[in-house]
Amino acid sequence: MTTTGASAELSVSPATAEELRKMDAYWRACNYLCVGMLYLLENPLLREPLKAEHIKNRLLGHWGSDPGQTFTWVHLNRLIKKYDLDMIYIAGPGHGAPATLSNSYLEGVYSEVYPEKSEDVAGLQRFFKQFSFPGGIGSHCTPETPGSIHEGGELGYSLSHGFGAAFDNPDLIVTVVVGDGEAETGPLATSWHANKFLNPKTDGAVLPILHLNGYKIANPTILARISPEELESLFRGYGWTPYVVEGDDPAKMHVLMAEVLEKCVTEIRDIQAKARAEGATVVRPRWPMIILRTPKGWTCPKELDGHKLEGSWRAHQMPIMDPKTNPDHLKLVESWMRSYKPEELFDESGKLIPELREMAPSGTRRISGNPHANGGELRKPLDLPRFQDYGLKVEEPGQTEVSSTDTLGHFLRDVVRKNMTSFRVFGPDETASNKLDAIYEASGKRWLAEMEASDADGGNLSIDGRVMEMLSEHTLEGWFEGYVLTGRHGFFSSYEAFVHIIDSMFNQHAKWLEKSKLELRWRAPISSINLLITSLVWRQDHNGFTHQDPGFLDVVTNKSPEVTRIYLPPDANCLLSVADHCLRSVDYINVIVADKAPHLQYLNMDEAVKHCTKGIGIWDFASSDAGADPDVILACAGDIPTSEALAAVAILRERCPELKIRFINVVDLFRLMPEHAHPHGLSDQEFDGLFTTDKPVIFNFHAYPSLIHKLTYKRKNHANFHVRGYKEKGNINTPLELAILNQVDRFNLAIDVIDRVPGLMTTAAHTREWLKDEITDSVNYAHENGIDRPEIRNWKWPAGSDKS
Amino acid sequence: MTTTGASAELSVSPATAEELRKMDAYWRACNYLCVGMLYLLENPLLREPLKAEHIKNRLLGHWGSDPGQTFTWVHLNRLIKKYDLDMIYIAGPGHGAPATLSNSYLEGVYSEVYPEKSEDVAGLQRFFKQFSFPGGIGSHCTPETPGSIHEGGELGYSLSHGFGAAFDNPDLIVTVVVGDGEAETGPLATSWHANKFLNPKTDGAVLPILHLNGYKIANPTILARISPEELESLFRGYGWTPYVVEGDDPAKMHVLMAEVLEKCVTEIRDIQAKARAEGATVVRPRWPMIILRTPKGWTCPKELDGHKLEGSWRAHQMPIMDPKTNPDHLKLVESWMRSYKPEELFDESGKLIPELREMAPSGTRRISGNPHANGGELRKPLDLPRFQDYGLKVEEPGQTEVSSTDTLGHFLRDVVRKNMTSFRVFGPDETASNKLDAIYEASGKRWLAEMEASDADGGNLSIDGRVMEMLSEHTLEGWFEGYVLTGRHGFFSSYEAFVHIIDSMFNQHAKWLEKSKLELRWRAPISSINLLITSLVWRQDHNGFTHQDPGFLDVVTNKSPEVTRIYLPPDANCLLSVADHCLRSVDYINVIVADKAPHLQYLNMDEAVKHCTKGIGIWDFASSDAGADPDVILACAGDIPTSEALAAVAILRERCPELKIRFINVVDLFRLMPEHAHPHGLSDQEFDGLFTTDKPVIFNFHAYPSLIHKLTYKRKNHANFHVRGYKEKGNINTPLELAILNQVDRFNLAIDVIDRVPGLMTTAAHTREWLKDEITDSVNYAHENGIDRPEIRNWKWPAGSDKS
Repeated sequence: MTTTGASAELSVSPATAEELRKMDAYWRACNYLCVGMLYLLENPLLREPLKAEHIKNRLLGHWGSDPGQTFTWVHLNRLIKKYDLDMIYIAGPGHGAPATLSNSYLEGVYSEVYPEKSEDVAGLQRFFKQFSFPGGIGSHCTPETPGSIHEGGELGYSLSHGFGAAFDNPDLIVTVVVGDGEAETGPLATSWHANKFLNPKTDGAVLPILHLNGYKIANPTILARISPEELESLFRGYGWTPYVVEGDDPAKMHVLMAEVLEKCVTEIRDIQAKARAEGATVVRPRWPMIILRTPKGWTCPKELDGHKLEGSWRAHQMPIMDPKTNPDHLKLVESWMRSYKPEELFDESGKLIPELREMAPSGTRRISGNPHANGGELRKPLDLPRFQDYGLKVEEPGQTEVSSTDTLGHFLRDVVRKNMTSFRVFGPDETASNKLDAIYEASGKRWLAEMEASDADGGNLSIDGRVMEMLSEHTLEGWFEGYVLTGRHGFFSSYEAFVHIIDSMFNQHAKWLEKSKLELRWRAPISSINLLITSLVWRQDHNGFTHQDPGFLDVVTNKSPEVTRIYLPPDANCLLSVADHCLRSVDYINVIVADKAPHLQYLNMDEAVKHCTKGIGIWDFASSDAGADPDVILACAGDIPTSEALAAVAILRERCPELKIRFINVVDLFRLMPEHAHPHGLSDQEFDGLFTTDKPVIFNFHAYPSLIHKLTYKRKNHANFHVRGYKEKGNINTPLELAILNQVDRFNLAIDVIDRVPGLMTTAAHTREWLKDEITDSVNYAHENGIDRPEIRNWKWPAGSDKS
Repeated sequence: MTTTGASAELSVSPATAEELRKMDAYWRACNYLCVGMLYLLENPLLREPLKAEHIKNRLLGHWGSDPGQTFTWVHLNRLIKKYDLDMIYIAGPGHGAPATLSNSYLEGVYSEVYPEKSEDVAGLQRFFKQFSFPGGIGSHCTPETPGSIHEGGELGYSLSHGFGAAFDNPDLIVTVVVGDGEAETGPLATSWHANKFLNPKTDGAVLPILHLNGYKIANPTILARISPEELESLFRGYGWTPYVVEGDDPAKMHVLMAEVLEKCVTEIRDIQAKARAEGATVVRPRWPMIILRTPKGWTCPKELDGHKLEGSWRAHQMPIMDPKTNPDHLKLVESWMRSYKPEELFDESGKLIPELREMAPSGTRRISGNPHANGGELRKPLDLPRFQDYGLKVEEPGQTEVSSTDTLGHFLRDVVRKNMTSFRVFGPDETASNKLDAIYEASGKRWLAEMEASDADGGNLSIDGRVMEMLSEHTLEGWFEGYVLTGRHGFFSSYEAFVHIIDSMFNQHAKWLEKSKLELRWRAPISSINLLITSLVWRQDHNGFTHQDPGFLDVVTNKSPEVTRIYLPPDANCLLSVADHCLRSVDYINVIVADKAPHLQYLNMDEAVKHCTKGIGIWDFASSDAGADPDVILACAGDIPTSEALAAVAILRERCPELKIRFINVVDLFRLMPEHAHPHGLSDQEFDGLFTTDKPVIFNFHAYPSLIHKLTYKRKNHANFHVRGYKEKGNINTPLELAILNQVDRFNLAIDVIDRVPGLMTTAAHTREWLKDEITDSVNYAHENGIDRPEIRNWKWPAGSDKS
């Protein structure tokens, strides 16, 4: 392997020979700690000969990318000190935590956060033992890792997290090491394009380092096995300027890396200076990036039992698996560890020697101690306008149709205006489609790719835009997470069916939040992820079956109740109240379900706030049980199910006037869970007070009906719960027709009531027949005319109903 | 805009002027039909002046990419005829179905499949009306679309579907039109690398056409707004040879497209001829691809009300929204439609004139009639070895530990051997990690990127490999879907937590299958998607919390019971039986959950086959109720929950010998559902016979406990169901410790029994205390030693137990 790259242009090393010598020593200290974590239970500094009993019983961890990452970190330290850089580091390679952990320990941050892991022999032994050990920490950068905002469990999001961190942090440089395995994932492959959304004037910089380690678990990586020309061409095509650092001789590599990193940092600073000069016109720059090609498991033994080790997939996890039982291999581990010369690196007490300690920056300039990586510390609450000021006047319930998301858009517009450097809106090309376009009055869509003259006519593109749109839910969610993890705020709207694209990202972030919130006091609370799910299953007139999937809520309910919230506001005022609450909250993932199409409005602002505060409640205007014993409970959650349930009540009032109906609306879905299972859960007493213990409950639900059963199966009256919801029936349908197919429509609900209230089947037999006919007529009309019957489209709640 | 591209090298048009004239006419016919679908309810050939009442009531559909796609199709037809090509077409742009539909109609295929949509005026009127109309068809290529294997609802998978179709179809060319919106998604962005997995000798070709339409719903696209140099560099970096066809003048564009397509097809044929020549060494070629830059909504009116229309995002959906109410706009729609000169294109009866009809290929060479796009027609059942031959000898239950997936690997190895051109195995770098590496004895991992000398030592790479590994679950699932949709077979193994990455793809394929199976008799059944979920939640010793998510099953249970199956085989022989069943099945998505680590084995092959055939059953060897009334039912589903449940039985047998336990194991999860809700559901009688109607049931489940409640809440004995499963508690834990945290371990299960069987709390109080101590001791031991206690690690079912 040869040492090539961008060095031709760089003749003089920016680092002195003495600096390079010390950097190499520091690097050896890092690598020593990495191997120590992987193997040692005792004898952390090898002050006695290594014995089998010093080795952990079960060897679990990854060596492969560690040395390349520690190498990078050591070189970053030099530049941080030289230029007083504000830098965080994101470790893309999944299981390379030892690299981050070792640096955190050497910088002293680890011992500050976890005093038991002190900077001495005893502390080091505990530091080694806990790694990948029961009751200890994981082998990727879990939330427990100081300096990290990026968990490497699932792969693919390092670069989008990095961009999220850099947005609106003009003085921050985010170094992102991208693993060449991770680079094969779809989310990572498209996230290189994020450079079209970064403004060099007001955003920070992202310095990606593609770590061409060469191998995944058991295979070569694609990018390591294409020609240098293709590789360079690919990154130029993505809009970057690639610099190659390649080789395996540490001495040469130190020189080269120092040169190239110096060049990259200088270029970054030049780009920024140019963009920030007075009167400068901001254009998309070609940011630098580095392709770092080092052998997998660099500096481990070259061979094991005749097989290539260094530079092979065999060095991905534990290069040597059996030192505990194989004396020769135990010797090999020992000589490998001693090759780093720990005796030169640590003093008698076990602490890194001062000469090396001073190679690292100090205080908050230490990468692992940078406050951006514990963003809650920097977080300031949003400056929120009074949401009540955006409310609709609702004199009487159910008389006017408005798009709730349009109303929300006006509120969000002013949230943007008042928080122009700490709040962003995310959406995959759908902000306008989702009726949030009022936001454009405050700020356009971020765009640093080419503009054309015609964009001026309604394109709403802007190099300063606060709205982030790219047709990649993965990238958006990654940006959003990176943005809140570094202390800012945001709001994401997405088509309901396709929010499943980020199921896995949701899972991972929920896990990160749960650990951070419940177990890591030192991690300050961060803003919630606020996810508006719209373009709902019930309004897919032309998109049809593929766009009908309300199942994200099922995924959400599997995660910890400590970090998950689901709201289904029935109208615009409730949506405003919920959104305001979510934007103020911390450490949650708030999922809000609200349709974008016009819908009837029910509650005035006071009522909406009260209703949302309770999260569930009886709607008196729609109830006819006069607060006493009802014959039946009609419950609903979701805007469309609510309007159909109300229409059913109107039908029943007219045709079965003696029927006592209690109408319950649920905004906060977790109210339904038992009190012990979720912090928002109603007590059994409260629940029984609402739903009774013996009356039939017809529950009209937005999503899959089984979810309501999942939440309520422990309740006394559960056997009487009859839930309607989406049951995977649909195609190209009018709204009413789709409701009918899934029996969430007014007619089927009224039939449900008739079928379940004792005695009603007899007295209301005629009504039941009429309802059946209405269903047939409705479908026929839709198939003939392509739209619903006018009396359905124009339906309103009967005017003059008692609302108090 | 100028017409540029690769034309410099091409001086003579391969198509004659007469051909080009006719192709343009054919194109106009396509475009006319597209607009007709979007707008017309009546008057399909404009044989009378267009009136408001001829326009649909609700206008829903997309024009934007239609003309560019029809343009492409017309040019493909010329080459199919010229070279007798076998070609299918995949429409990436989400809502561009009119392009495919119009061609299918003009080729006569649509009328063959749907005789009511005949090739005459009345049929054309019905063809127009049904489009994006209630009770009709969608505005993207739904399963109802002849010639399509790719639904455009969600975006991102066109290219991976295309490669899946091309694998092992050496004479097939798959033309994939990639939308520039879709190109921004992660899955699409990485799928360009699929060219490193295509063998030009034995696979067909994929010809990608990136359609630079310029706009998404409301934004420009990234790839349309980078420099030509970057764009070309990007695709060269991805390993393709890009050819540009750019312009807006149809006459010039026809010449250019004919030249470039001719060149691409010639290159493809040359590459293949070279690779297939005797003695040729196969290397990865640089396949051609086309960048087709045409105005969005090409050929629609240039402007509307002073706003740019053609070439703008305003032409994405319906370019003119209100012709029904705006007479000027009605006139504009009419003049637009008449600009295609329908009177020159269709004869008196309403059929395409013969001169144009002959421009299309005939029979199975018609793209929309190509049998590969109805792959079930070509499908041949797998040649399967006797799975029983791979079974384990199990003399007595629970005495030996074996990795079930390792056993499966040997069976799959021979499935590969016997089906070397119709069966592939898919996995994200995990085939070996998941213990399926016996397959490499039959065939290696497909790899056409560079090879190195050291790969020979255990790399298992091969240009002919039948194992497809890339670190992108999206790409793998896309390949697999494309492969089965064109009539072949496969098997996918994935880490459990990260199968959520393809939740959305699962949803979309399930919807495709349901429609195809239940509503489209003409679509022949295709092989099932077989998905082995392994590296399970319960064995994440070092991966920890991020790798613990068994929630994919919740996603699966939301989809139609007609197409979903879930199996949790408890041991290797059951896994073999289940796998054999799945490989023979059609039109399902089979999800198999089985761990890769060594586990105790229970059933001999006969017992396993019987057990799996029933899908649920009492295990007599573990039961002590002698077929009579039990005190308690201990049920389980999943290999790890099964072994813990058995260990609990062993404890209880010894310490509470009088207790009558019935032990039930569930393989086929949907057995639990009500008979009316799933074809596999047990009748209430059968269910009650197993679970009784009044005895406590302790159910030890592999995944989230609520799923069992979701499936069983309607059963009589549900109130007595006490389900244990994963409850989102974990970190770095030994297997036993993790089980304890979630209470699926033997000790907690025994406590559950004691707490729930009436009277046992008193007599077994001492045992209960002992169990509590065991739990504490177990966790302490793990934290001290990093492994579980030997008596747990080496636990076996008590030898000599009655097994009959």
